[in-house]
Amino acid sequence: MHTKLIARSDMETILSRVGLDALMDQLIDRLREGFSTADLAHAQIPARSGLHYHSPDLGLIEWMPANLKQGKASLKIVGYHPTNPSKRSLPTILSTLSVYDTRSGHLLGLLDGTLPTALRTGAMSAIATELLGPPRDGLVLGIVGCGAQAVTQCHALSRLLPIARIVAHDRNPQAAESLSQRTSFLSIPIEPVAHGQLTELLEASDLLCTCTSEDPGRGPLFPDFANRPGLHINAVGCDFPEKFELPVELLRRSYVCPDFREQALIEGECQQLQPAEIGDDLATLLRDPEAARAQRERLTVFDSTGHAYADYLSALLFLDYAGEMELGTDIGLECIPADPLDPYSFLNPSARKDSASACIQESGT
Amino acid sequence: MHTKLIARSDMETILSRVGLDALMDQLIDRLREGFSTADLAHAQIPARSGLHYHSPDLGLIEWMPANLKQGKASLKIVGYHPTNPSKRSLPTILSTLSVYDTRSGHLLGLLDGTLPTALRTGAMSAIATELLGPPRDGLVLGIVGCGAQAVTQCHALSRLLPIARIVAHDRNPQAAESLSQRTSFLSIPIEPVAHGQLTELLEASDLLCTCTSEDPGRGPLFPDFANRPGLHINAVGCDFPEKFELPVELLRRSYVCPDFREQALIEGECQQLQPAEIGDDLATLLRDPEAARAQRERLTVFDSTGHAYADYLSALLFLDYAGEMELGTDIGLECIPADPLDPYSFLNPSARKDSASACIQESGT
Repeated sequence: MHTKLIARSDMETILSRVGLDALMDQLIDRLREGFSTADLAHAQIPARSGLHYHSPDLGLIEWMPANLKQGKASLKIVGYHPTNPSKRSLPTILSTLSVYDTRSGHLLGLLDGTLPTALRTGAMSAIATELLGPPRDGLVLGIVGCGAQAVTQCHALSRLLPIARIVAHDRNPQAAESLSQRTSFLSIPIEPVAHGQLTELLEASDLLCTCTSEDPGRGPLFPDFANRPGLHINAVGCDFPEKFELPVELLRRSYVCPDFREQALIEGECQQLQPAEIGDDLATLLRDPEAARAQRERLTVFDSTGHAYADYLSALLFLDYAGEMELGTDIGLECIPADPLDPYSFLNPSARKDSASACIQESGT
Repeated sequence: MHTKLIARSDMETILSRVGLDALMDQLIDRLREGFSTADLAHAQIPARSGLHYHSPDLGLIEWMPANLKQGKASLKIVGYHPTNPSKRSLPTILSTLSVYDTRSGHLLGLLDGTLPTALRTGAMSAIATELLGPPRDGLVLGIVGCGAQAVTQCHALSRLLPIARIVAHDRNPQAAESLSQRTSFLSIPIEPVAHGQLTELLEASDLLCTCTSEDPGRGPLFPDFANRPGLHINAVGCDFPEKFELPVELLRRSYVCPDFREQALIEGECQQLQPAEIGDDLATLLRDPEAARAQRERLTVFDSTGHAYADYLSALLFLDYAGEMELGTDIGLECIPADPLDPYSFLNPSARKDSASACIQESGT
């Protein structure tokens, strides 16, 4: 019985062969289809929990499980360490994805979760924006927070929406400057703006993505502003209690669609709202696109806290690619005994005999 | 940046080279030392939670995290699927252990958790029994439940206590019969007994281990009985709400020492007790062995639900052995980008270029 291990080099092969755009398109399709059809009410997707700590630096390691009752469960382990980029040249988010057989508990596969997290976060924003964004051409996309997530937000949105230009702000001007280079493969003009021009950025945007690492208790990122008609906002930076990005006045004027209502109430923009002020979640809107489109003339917000079912679908997509391309390594991981009632019987008999004699020698010395 | 992967074959090498007895002794020493000295009050060890389901069979997949604030956190993922032995020739418990760097969230190591779970469960019983068991020679060990855990219970207890003979019962007579073969390396006489003789087994035991897979709501395993003076019981089968093994009358006559109080109240024998009826936990007793020994003349119960700190110490022990023996494989798992702000920069530039052209081709077809 083996575990399929997808190494970083396998992920690189998959991306090289499939291509970034085709991969993003495929992921968007699977997520749209999955969220439109899955019986999430009967799935087991507990709101994530984890280890939160403040030493040596602020950080957390969380687990995001999803059991769709289709014989498999996924578990994403995701670390969020905002000092990673500056102190360790590592991304803020580091993650792995595991897939288990729910008949036996066997670990079927293990792969990176860092890239899938960035991809699916972008893809989910694109799906929400396709539903709720203004039905116009030549859209201006505003980006607030130009870290790793900004790249996949721009990428995914550009796959589904006619984005004419991007205006980008980050507290760190270098991050705002470098975003154009990081998204050059999109061939969309991108303009970095300084803090003094943030209000202009907000007021010029048809679409807005906030994807910051704002500290808990420090939000919102900006005061309320005079938005363009039908502005759609993807608020993707929230992943911590007390952490939010948008001003509550703006939320109250908006139709707010959470990705995962229970979780958004704990660590999303929805923390700032009463339950009655919150709209339908994305899966519900996807089943009733007419109702969603009726909101398009309004200010709309997708409160994206990160959905474990999106991780589940992302893990299966990469495992499928690895299967098709015959990538990955089958490793024997669990010590599965020859006799299920004897934990030592995974040792072959000769090793066991050696072991017994080794013990006698040990105790004799 | 690499993840140390300890394969099943590496575990086999470790056990062969170290020897089963020396390994168990080393683990017992580390656990005794660790629980005697660790600042568990300031560690982060949330009571385990998980996915519990009844379809296709009763099962659960749980996560057991431990952050000792020493720069590393462990996460054991443990599956409990009682139909595994009969339906799939697999052990009831299948598990993996992960160790994370709490500065960055990086996955440092991954190894089997199935064998470490069996080993540490035995080792914890032995440590509790050394403290609380009757100070006599020629002890009779009663075993109720002759599955995989029974093997390591017998093994670990025999390393610390003068066991003259073992009397074993299982609802499945074949399991009781085969235990003597599975524990033959201990060279202790072992006698299987049928259900009709269960009371005699209980009344003859100086030490008792209950390690069954009793279904939730079906306990206790037997009614109260006339115990030997100073009987010590290790109740290790509890790992589920509503699941318990011992009669409440017996618990009320006993000094009950939980491994992990909060968790034992949810899924241990302590479910049946009021908080005031529960004694100190094992870590507390280890710091005051005189107080523990004062209980030895009484009936004593170690309520062993499974402690994530024991998993943490077990994981580090095996990683240390692998390090010393230069075993394990260093794999690049997380897609760590060259630029922490660009999730696609883990691709080398040529792959990225190919990727871009592949996309163009894709969209052109």
